[in-house]
Amino acid sequence: MTDSALTTVPAGLRMPAEWQRHERCWMGWPCRTLLWGERLLAARRAFADVARTIADFEPVTMVANPHDVAEASLMCGQGIDILALPLDDSWLRDTGPSFVHDAEGGLAGIAWRFNAWGERYLPYGDDAALSAAVLAHLKCPAFLAPLVLEGGAISVDGEGTLLATESSILNPNRNPGRGWAEVEQIFAGYLGVSQVIWLAGGLVHDETDGHVDNIACFVAPGRVLAAAPGWRIDPDYEMLRTNLERLRAARDANGRALEVIEVPRPKAREIDGRALVRSYLNFYPANGAVIVPVFDDVADDRAFSVIAKTFPERQPVAVQANDVVYGGGGIHCITQPQPARR
Amino acid sequence: MTDSALTTVPAGLRMPAEWQRHERCWMGWPCRTLLWGERLLAARRAFADVARTIADFEPVTMVANPHDVAEASLMCGQGIDILALPLDDSWLRDTGPSFVHDAEGGLAGIAWRFNAWGERYLPYGDDAALSAAVLAHLKCPAFLAPLVLEGGAISVDGEGTLLATESSILNPNRNPGRGWAEVEQIFAGYLGVSQVIWLAGGLVHDETDGHVDNIACFVAPGRVLAAAPGWRIDPDYEMLRTNLERLRAARDANGRALEVIEVPRPKAREIDGRALVRSYLNFYPANGAVIVPVFDDVADDRAFSVIAKTFPERQPVAVQANDVVYGGGGIHCITQPQPARR
Repeated sequence: MTDSALTTVPAGLRMPAEWQRHERCWMGWPCRTLLWGERLLAARRAFADVARTIADFEPVTMVANPHDVAEASLMCGQGIDILALPLDDSWLRDTGPSFVHDAEGGLAGIAWRFNAWGERYLPYGDDAALSAAVLAHLKCPAFLAPLVLEGGAISVDGEGTLLATESSILNPNRNPGRGWAEVEQIFAGYLGVSQVIWLAGGLVHDETDGHVDNIACFVAPGRVLAAAPGWRIDPDYEMLRTNLERLRAARDANGRALEVIEVPRPKAREIDGRALVRSYLNFYPANGAVIVPVFDDVADDRAFSVIAKTFPERQPVAVQANDVVYGGGGIHCITQPQPARR
Repeated sequence: MTDSALTTVPAGLRMPAEWQRHERCWMGWPCRTLLWGERLLAARRAFADVARTIADFEPVTMVANPHDVAEASLMCGQGIDILALPLDDSWLRDTGPSFVHDAEGGLAGIAWRFNAWGERYLPYGDDAALSAAVLAHLKCPAFLAPLVLEGGAISVDGEGTLLATESSILNPNRNPGRGWAEVEQIFAGYLGVSQVIWLAGGLVHDETDGHVDNIACFVAPGRVLAAAPGWRIDPDYEMLRTNLERLRAARDANGRALEVIEVPRPKAREIDGRALVRSYLNFYPANGAVIVPVFDDVADDRAFSVIAKTFPERQPVAVQANDVVYGGGGIHCITQPQPARR
């Protein structure tokens, strides 16, 4: 007898778009001391700020290591649920499950294989087990996908189209020997995706090998925000130009061309010799709101207003994110939406 | 609200002894090509042999990577259940859950934290997630223990006593800063253990930093098999002497002294420059049987008969294990018993 309940998917799974209604937002309490160093406390304050901001619009669960539960609870304050589970790091977008709807509109979860962004950080066993643990906690049907992937590497329109970068997903540090077709087949089965729009890569300093969530995302079917290439001297210029060309030539799963809206980028900045990867694209659409990272940069206002205009029915909220991006990601990277039943 | 269903254990969990009745045996299909090299096929044949041998006495589930399912199914033959789940390596004793009884005698599972024996092998994300995945598949209550541990690092008598080596569990490559008392507290809560007998260490060439399952195990309450120290020139001599002294001085959870029976060891042997870690102690008690590894060694018969005499009511079965130990472990290392309800 061969049994494969967790690795064979039923027909009809589909990942909803991020702007569809959420049941809850999942986050993780900062904990990797070698990553944050002396800035760990600042990071925790910043994560707690993000959690409280989101909690004005939808419930938030903060996953925290068992020994950090008391601190997380105190710093987040009332109204944030704390769930004790072992964590190596705190990027729930990448280490949490990707939630999908089943054919009846119920909730299911995809647990991707995880290797800490191509084995950049050790240890990573708790993070590799986290998706399964979250789904077990929710008593939610779980499917283990045969692909090393982080949630920040994909953006979907909820209607069968997915944006991704080749540099991250097809990287030999994650899926050696895997090609486009094989990956697209997995996205078809696990996420209900019939059209993948492949961008070339992401931001040069991004330790994720260029997650799409720092450079482009769907904001509605047929409409995409994308990082503006900026100036020719910018190390990201060529890549972002290439990506824009691909987006403008692309068709979505329904055969539509895409409206592409450029979002300015903040200036390059280093702290402690570490190049910060700052992107306004790394925002989080909560129920009735859009939580936008800002960086004390001259481009803050313009970027904020572009994103706010994209979601005219939502309340735009700016959150200071320099203490988050010091660890490598933005607001989108530290959040994982659990969609409501369809 | 603070929530910790998966990390807070109810009262009354207890790990049964291995000789208590099993519902099933879990194994994993060899897959880490960098470990097995050209001997991968031989390893698969050997694992299939072990599976078929055990299946004469109790049901066996072979976990195999999704792309290995067809091969595993063909090589194992009828009567072995194959379950598709992602695996990095194939030592289910160390990567599977430790099954326990709850206060009512029902089944529950402990998922230990896993870091590939102190980060000796990469990747290890699939193995770190395996226990949770197996427990999700079984729809069995799961508890995530806050300790890096492999199942081969412990042996219990089912009555509250546990054998372990300091060199493995207290190693800074697994649980830095953790001491005896803290670990004993975790064993108390998760395994129902009130007395831990700490041995100093294991075999020098053992990549597990000296798992107890190569040097000593309970075979009945109050009775232990232990590896014989052998000769003074043997690199394991001093450590095994120390362990014997500790065993002879120890008391179990019920205050009993232990009867300690020495088991001879096979001769040292290398293949491809790799020192094989061969131990007769690394056997598996199946329902009504005891599956004993043999090595084409002059000590085979003596060791086999010592172990057979220890289980007079069971059928002793010898299995050639050189092709298994090439990968680092024995029959005990590649099996994980799922106990029957109490």
